[in-house]
Amino acid sequence: MNATGVIVEYNPFHNGHLYHINLTKQKTGADVVIAVMSGHFLQRGEPALVDKWQRATMALQAGVDLVIELPYCFATGHAKDFAFGGVSLLESLGCQTMSFGSEAGSIEGFKSSYSLLNAHNDEVQLNIHEQIKSGISYPQALNNSYKVLSAKYNLDLIDLSQPNNILGYHYVEQIMTHHFAMQPLTIQRITAGYHDDVSKNESIASATGIRKELLQQKQLSAIEQFIPPTSLESLITNDSYSSWETFYPQLRFTILRSSPAELRQYVDLTEGIEFLIYKAAQQCNTFPLFMQKIKSKRYTWTRIQRMLCHIFVGYTKEQRENFTSPRYIRILGMTSIGQQYISIHKKDFKLPIVSRVASFKDSMLEVDIRATDLYMLASGHHIIGKDYKTPPIRLLNK
Amino acid sequence: MNATGVIVEYNPFHNGHLYHINLTKQKTGADVVIAVMSGHFLQRGEPALVDKWQRATMALQAGVDLVIELPYCFATGHAKDFAFGGVSLLESLGCQTMSFGSEAGSIEGFKSSYSLLNAHNDEVQLNIHEQIKSGISYPQALNNSYKVLSAKYNLDLIDLSQPNNILGYHYVEQIMTHHFAMQPLTIQRITAGYHDDVSKNESIASATGIRKELLQQKQLSAIEQFIPPTSLESLITNDSYSSWETFYPQLRFTILRSSPAELRQYVDLTEGIEFLIYKAAQQCNTFPLFMQKIKSKRYTWTRIQRMLCHIFVGYTKEQRENFTSPRYIRILGMTSIGQQYISIHKKDFKLPIVSRVASFKDSMLEVDIRATDLYMLASGHHIIGKDYKTPPIRLLNK
Repeated sequence: MNATGVIVEYNPFHNGHLYHINLTKQKTGADVVIAVMSGHFLQRGEPALVDKWQRATMALQAGVDLVIELPYCFATGHAKDFAFGGVSLLESLGCQTMSFGSEAGSIEGFKSSYSLLNAHNDEVQLNIHEQIKSGISYPQALNNSYKVLSAKYNLDLIDLSQPNNILGYHYVEQIMTHHFAMQPLTIQRITAGYHDDVSKNESIASATGIRKELLQQKQLSAIEQFIPPTSLESLITNDSYSSWETFYPQLRFTILRSSPAELRQYVDLTEGIEFLIYKAAQQCNTFPLFMQKIKSKRYTWTRIQRMLCHIFVGYTKEQRENFTSPRYIRILGMTSIGQQYISIHKKDFKLPIVSRVASFKDSMLEVDIRATDLYMLASGHHIIGKDYKTPPIRLLNK
Repeated sequence: MNATGVIVEYNPFHNGHLYHINLTKQKTGADVVIAVMSGHFLQRGEPALVDKWQRATMALQAGVDLVIELPYCFATGHAKDFAFGGVSLLESLGCQTMSFGSEAGSIEGFKSSYSLLNAHNDEVQLNIHEQIKSGISYPQALNNSYKVLSAKYNLDLIDLSQPNNILGYHYVEQIMTHHFAMQPLTIQRITAGYHDDVSKNESIASATGIRKELLQQKQLSAIEQFIPPTSLESLITNDSYSSWETFYPQLRFTILRSSPAELRQYVDLTEGIEFLIYKAAQQCNTFPLFMQKIKSKRYTWTRIQRMLCHIFVGYTKEQRENFTSPRYIRILGMTSIGQQYISIHKKDFKLPIVSRVASFKDSMLEVDIRATDLYMLASGHHIIGKDYKTPPIRLLNK
């Protein structure tokens, strides 16, 4: 069977995602679409609006055949680590193609950009390093270096200041660096910019815009035009949505229960930012005020939020050292076609399949399980060990 | 000026406490009564119903002249450590007498009991050790040894199975062991047993009974007959009371965010109980169910609750190693007489006076400050650093 992969968060699943899945199927003629999806904490360093099983269900209802969890350590990593975790898993699953949305819309631009940057890697790294020292963020520094380079060689390349292009670049980079057999494919995003606010005359909006509407308006009608009917029906059952605003009491308690020295043990906390985080937690009663206190040119919103995830989940630098690549294929959900794909191809998979977490003892998986428990507690659910209790979702009429 | 000390929790201040203060004044003719009072976590391993400044205010209104905080590390310690912290502070403050309530009511019995147990210390310690190995709790083992001893020597001594006698015994033991100049005095408790339920025909009930009524009935009218009018008036301003039931969400989150190995670093967690605590937090949605799961013959309710305080506050074995005796006299509140006593006698005090915590950097004091912050957060107040912001309460018309 011919498989195509996507790397997603589906927070929540919306019409833009549906468009991407449908066009991917059309362009690749894939028999099966596999989504590697983040669990309860996302690449922008935020808790997901709704839990991972609900997000997997929305994906299956909309045409994805198999949903695999991207482990916490990759899902909340920098773009490069996120991309590596995602493409490694898709490669392990035997996908011939991986498809991503981008502003650029042509895969050739990505490949040329990678070749150029790779050929001048030492020069670029040195330049990025210099910029970071002067207080510029990594994505910004990469883009600056890249602009200089493309002007110098007079090449017409992708715009690396666009967020989906950046992520796509990292997918291509990881595929090419690791010489994966899987081919990258990109589909041009339509209408909505990544961070744009929603527009009432459109059926497509960015996930960021949709989340903002939902969290502000607190009712589904605010977003129903942007999501498929199946997703709408699924979300109707929710009486609340999770966010840092709702998780702030637990986050604040956790920060203030620690000393700055204890905070320093968590992933990404460097350069004394632990003192800034501790002080902001002392002074600020709400999450927006807290973030305002910490944010600066040096520390982007996303970078700070990722640190907060690691504090919240208790994910330490010591743990991360052992997490170099994915170790398991954790199934969150599947359709009949997805199930069929697994039974035919699993002997060729490069990693073990995990349907029941109780049968697979692994420190990387334990972080995912703990992340679920803490997410559930902070969301006001008294369900502990949901990873143990929830078998993969099966949508068997599809 | 002639000073008498008491060691208290006032959780909340009730008519039995008032009786004790009045009789103490009468018997000693003291010019000033000094109370060393626990902060936000108590000897039975519980959060206080209301904050320490409110409890100090109730004490001052009822006739105490000076309220000093018993540091967290002593306030939540075993009876012996609790007693040592309390009597050391009273001795440092130059008290001539310390007065405690007891079931026995005569100080001679306490002194004889101490002399007997001290004279046979090796034998008693060995015997206690053997009993603990067979699963008997420390207080029970002490009482058993003591009974054998008093029968053997045919002496009529105090009953060491009574909770106030036990605590009193430890006060006397500490005073005598350390050769303090201060003299112990005991006043017989009237009517209410330590753990008794309240009785509607009485004006005196145990603090345990009063707390139980208040937390169950959730209205002050349930306890007004047992507390002085000034305390009643103070408590009217509270819209809620703190307890492990109300703190359980934060406690549970903290336990489940840790691994059993991390829990083991906290004070009193030994013998693998960390696994039991972790598992109970996974399984139980309410505090009573959680406690039921952990409690056994070996682990008394109080002993478990103390561990929970230490987990909650993040108080580690490493910290405790450095906390051998009180290092400061932290003033929570005073009347004019209390203030006068300090200004006359402070040059003779054996420890530094702390009125403003910002002016005294000390790791023992930092634990008290953190305990306040976490208590406030879990109580639903967004006040951080209240120890820095709150000067000693002054009741200057008294």
